[in-house]
Amino acid sequence: MRSLLLSRRDLDFLLHDWLDVGALTSRERFAEHSRETFDAVLDLSEQVATEQFAPHNRAADLAEPEFDGERVHMIPEVAKALEAFAATGILSAGMDESVGGMQLPQTVAQACFLWFQAANVGTSAYPFLTIANANLLLAHGSPEQVETWVGPMVEGRFFGTMCLSEPQAGSSLADITTRAEPRDDGTYRLRGNKMWISGGDHDLSENIVHLVLAKIPGGPAGVKGISLFIVPKVLPDGQRNDVVLAGVNHKMGFRGTVNTLLNFGEGKHTPDGEAGAVGYLVGERGKGLALMFHMMNEARVGVGGNAAALGYTGYLHALDYARTRVQGRRDGRPATIVEHPDVARMLLAQKSYAEGAVALILYCARLLDDERTAATEKDRARAHLLLDTLTPIAKSWPSQWCLAANDLAIQVHGGYGYTREYAVEQFWRDNRLNMIHEGTHGIQGLDLLGRKVVLHDGAGLRLLLDTIGAGVERARAAGLTAEADAVGAAATRTAEVTAALWAADDPAVTLANSSTYLEAVGHVVVAWIWLEQLVAVGEREGDFADGKRAAARYFLRHELPRTGPQFALLESLDRTTLDVRPEIL
Amino acid sequence: MRSLLLSRRDLDFLLHDWLDVGALTSRERFAEHSRETFDAVLDLSEQVATEQFAPHNRAADLAEPEFDGERVHMIPEVAKALEAFAATGILSAGMDESVGGMQLPQTVAQACFLWFQAANVGTSAYPFLTIANANLLLAHGSPEQVETWVGPMVEGRFFGTMCLSEPQAGSSLADITTRAEPRDDGTYRLRGNKMWISGGDHDLSENIVHLVLAKIPGGPAGVKGISLFIVPKVLPDGQRNDVVLAGVNHKMGFRGTVNTLLNFGEGKHTPDGEAGAVGYLVGERGKGLALMFHMMNEARVGVGGNAAALGYTGYLHALDYARTRVQGRRDGRPATIVEHPDVARMLLAQKSYAEGAVALILYCARLLDDERTAATEKDRARAHLLLDTLTPIAKSWPSQWCLAANDLAIQVHGGYGYTREYAVEQFWRDNRLNMIHEGTHGIQGLDLLGRKVVLHDGAGLRLLLDTIGAGVERARAAGLTAEADAVGAAATRTAEVTAALWAADDPAVTLANSSTYLEAVGHVVVAWIWLEQLVAVGEREGDFADGKRAAARYFLRHELPRTGPQFALLESLDRTTLDVRPEIL
Repeated sequence: MRSLLLSRRDLDFLLHDWLDVGALTSRERFAEHSRETFDAVLDLSEQVATEQFAPHNRAADLAEPEFDGERVHMIPEVAKALEAFAATGILSAGMDESVGGMQLPQTVAQACFLWFQAANVGTSAYPFLTIANANLLLAHGSPEQVETWVGPMVEGRFFGTMCLSEPQAGSSLADITTRAEPRDDGTYRLRGNKMWISGGDHDLSENIVHLVLAKIPGGPAGVKGISLFIVPKVLPDGQRNDVVLAGVNHKMGFRGTVNTLLNFGEGKHTPDGEAGAVGYLVGERGKGLALMFHMMNEARVGVGGNAAALGYTGYLHALDYARTRVQGRRDGRPATIVEHPDVARMLLAQKSYAEGAVALILYCARLLDDERTAATEKDRARAHLLLDTLTPIAKSWPSQWCLAANDLAIQVHGGYGYTREYAVEQFWRDNRLNMIHEGTHGIQGLDLLGRKVVLHDGAGLRLLLDTIGAGVERARAAGLTAEADAVGAAATRTAEVTAALWAADDPAVTLANSSTYLEAVGHVVVAWIWLEQLVAVGEREGDFADGKRAAARYFLRHELPRTGPQFALLESLDRTTLDVRPEIL
Repeated sequence: MRSLLLSRRDLDFLLHDWLDVGALTSRERFAEHSRETFDAVLDLSEQVATEQFAPHNRAADLAEPEFDGERVHMIPEVAKALEAFAATGILSAGMDESVGGMQLPQTVAQACFLWFQAANVGTSAYPFLTIANANLLLAHGSPEQVETWVGPMVEGRFFGTMCLSEPQAGSSLADITTRAEPRDDGTYRLRGNKMWISGGDHDLSENIVHLVLAKIPGGPAGVKGISLFIVPKVLPDGQRNDVVLAGVNHKMGFRGTVNTLLNFGEGKHTPDGEAGAVGYLVGERGKGLALMFHMMNEARVGVGGNAAALGYTGYLHALDYARTRVQGRRDGRPATIVEHPDVARMLLAQKSYAEGAVALILYCARLLDDERTAATEKDRARAHLLLDTLTPIAKSWPSQWCLAANDLAIQVHGGYGYTREYAVEQFWRDNRLNMIHEGTHGIQGLDLLGRKVVLHDGAGLRLLLDTIGAGVERARAAGLTAEADAVGAAATRTAEVTAALWAADDPAVTLANSSTYLEAVGHVVVAWIWLEQLVAVGEREGDFADGKRAAARYFLRHELPRTGPQFALLESLDRTTLDVRPEIL
């Protein structure tokens, strides 16, 4: 039976025919791997996701985690699935063998993760937050911190969180008020309230490793005063730390992931009789935000992965329904609805969004592999810069368009899609979070236009456009003239419009429509990703290759042209949104 | 306190400054009305909607109607609100005095209805289905049928439904299999299963009047064999008719409205010991679908009203939040988020969608008044034709774009918007139904491009474009040159592209992208509606007028240009969606 989670055929195409992950095995880090080990871990991921994650996806939605004032209750299937996940070792798929990892290419690890995200985005959030947490500590923690905290995370005994937002400071981290008082023994005592903490409390693991942003009194104002701390739920000596669950949020979707308010140092638990939650500084004082962005950038691509996986499974569910539901006629005989052009349109759109998003996410993972293991320093730096530039798009584009895919999946089902008897309405609700968490859509737009494309004198954007340009040339050489022309022209427009925006003498004007910029450039990037797939398909025949060609054609003809009016608006330095007096709304 | 349901100020502007409902009082039918009676009924609507409908909107979502195998249970606030509604007499606001109606202009009645839809779309569905049901019987029922069924509906004692779909026949009504066997006494006995019946069973009223499509054996195949029947839950002699609740659907939203599967004539109740549910033919045999479209067309504009009202209240909720939530800085001081341009963009977009949609719905109601009461037969015919042409747009445009407005309302709230502690996530879920029920989005596209614009040799489209052209000329005369040019050019494109589409020699090619056509023409129509509002605002000063100007500017600069690539795609007679072989998906 064809899986309704993802298409292994498509993953194999992307990994091997396009991204050539086999070539990575010639690099020392991956020398012990081969196509066989890649296949085995992908097989295992599909199996565990299908058998342990997918079956309770609806149950976890219907019975969301509840807080009784003492502890969080959730359905037992979650813990069981996470035990099965821990047993696979996939949590440490990309980590070094020295810490117990599989040392797989990130590209392959990412493909594995997508199976779990497609099967159950709520349950999969626990290990994926843990992975990002562990990776931050591996990169920036002391050897002792790695040993104490990362080891048990790799074994699946401890889970991790990231604690940034506060009730009064969501997107504006400069305004956080959580304080960390230094003590003589080198530890800190934290006090403050953190909001929107996914996985902030539960009984799923022996311990929870919170990574917390806080200010050390006497430090500089704003973001330069922010430091990063490990604040565990349970201290190494077994005492309960003063991290207190204050409440859970009742969400529209993504319900399997408990989302919490945490009070640090409210005085419920007082190790050594002293007020405050015990914390351990990670890295240098005042560098907290930069360090947290190690985790945040990974989390942002992870959010894109969530969205892409939900879009993909929604597409497969809609396709499955459309192939079997008989309604109306075509050529005079009863027809399955997949035969109606408007349904085919909705399916092609979903295919172009979901497969485009998955390809984009895997491409970003490939950049991470190059950042770590490419042969030359220059290549590693290029990969780092390109990934940094693409991150806001990898986060926002799937979040927007795979949500649109889930909307279309509902529409294909008609009234049935609006009921809880079918899966697609949950995907749509679950996916809606992805435009919000880990930096809202608007924040990503500011990051792309206000930061990423201007950093290093515009080198990031130049690199992106050069990379697209190289793809366009390859497509042209392969005879894909019209397609190459369309993507090439869109890349040229991107350069022109970016220059026009930054030629304005007022950054407020430049940034006024940064969300539109984000969306336009996102479509250009995904058009190029489709062009890359066309080149990889080559002259191959058969349904799979024809499907790729049809989805690419759909994207280039129906989707890419949306950028025309967007770029025109941006180029006009439109002030409509900037000049609004709040009173007139 | 400013209402978070609708803006009375805006309604007054649309009703008086734009649509000039005062002028209707010079027509005989409305001679007893005045600005005072209009104001009084709007005041009453706002009050009852605010006090009786809004407070249980969330409760009805959390405790959806449940079926225990015998009857439907729902929270008691619904019945209480509907009693209060019945006491207002607004159910019969637009009906003749001879049947106990207020004989108000439909335009004013529609404005009243919007208050209830904004306050609680789920509870308001019961009376609004009843109104549409009663209007069908008033137009096509026998005097005896009107007396027996419409009278109690006007008093709020009986509620009504429409029963079209069946499990195997959703959009394809030609395929329904419910049969109606004639009996010697002139009645019929119906057997069959109906699906997706809103308000199909409950204890909210003494009786439920089902209007049911069924086929009389021996009649022609397809839609010409379909007749329309009144099938009450309780027969006039007090016996229970054989209409049996078979189940309720568990919906993602719109939960206050019970949605049912009904079995007709399954044998549970057998009046006179004879099998089948007793039904009474309405109008002529074989005309069922045409008669039902009397109700369906009204219901479609009603769906647009639902969507518009949800978009509007979502906008006001988001605006209220954005005015009070402090986050980040502007010009170095802490700022409310309404001051951030990207938030202003999201609010302006919502304002342009919601106010545009409400204006469109009121415009359609004004056409209904003209269809009934304009001075000349020619004017009445024009109004009928224009309303008929606009109906698919009045249904689909608010359903799509006020859903987008609700999505933006969530986004403005950030993480809070994703929780059930705030109202906006429910609006988004509730609104999602509107692109599905009473004819899906795709069906509306086929109706517009395949039927409405070609009927009468294209007279409907010509009338629409002439009407837009007249508005463009008024705008030009008022000095709104750039705005008039933009809308005028869009109308010209509509004519060109429609001609190009019908110049194709294959209807399958013409109709392949009819959803895109629907969306493009919808944007042109709403751009014209905004131009009309600009003319009505004139040179007025102040926040309200400036707000209208900003929203119009937003729509013309950020939204209308979306139609450029849509029209280009349509003109190219693109076959991408038509040529898809199902196997390649």
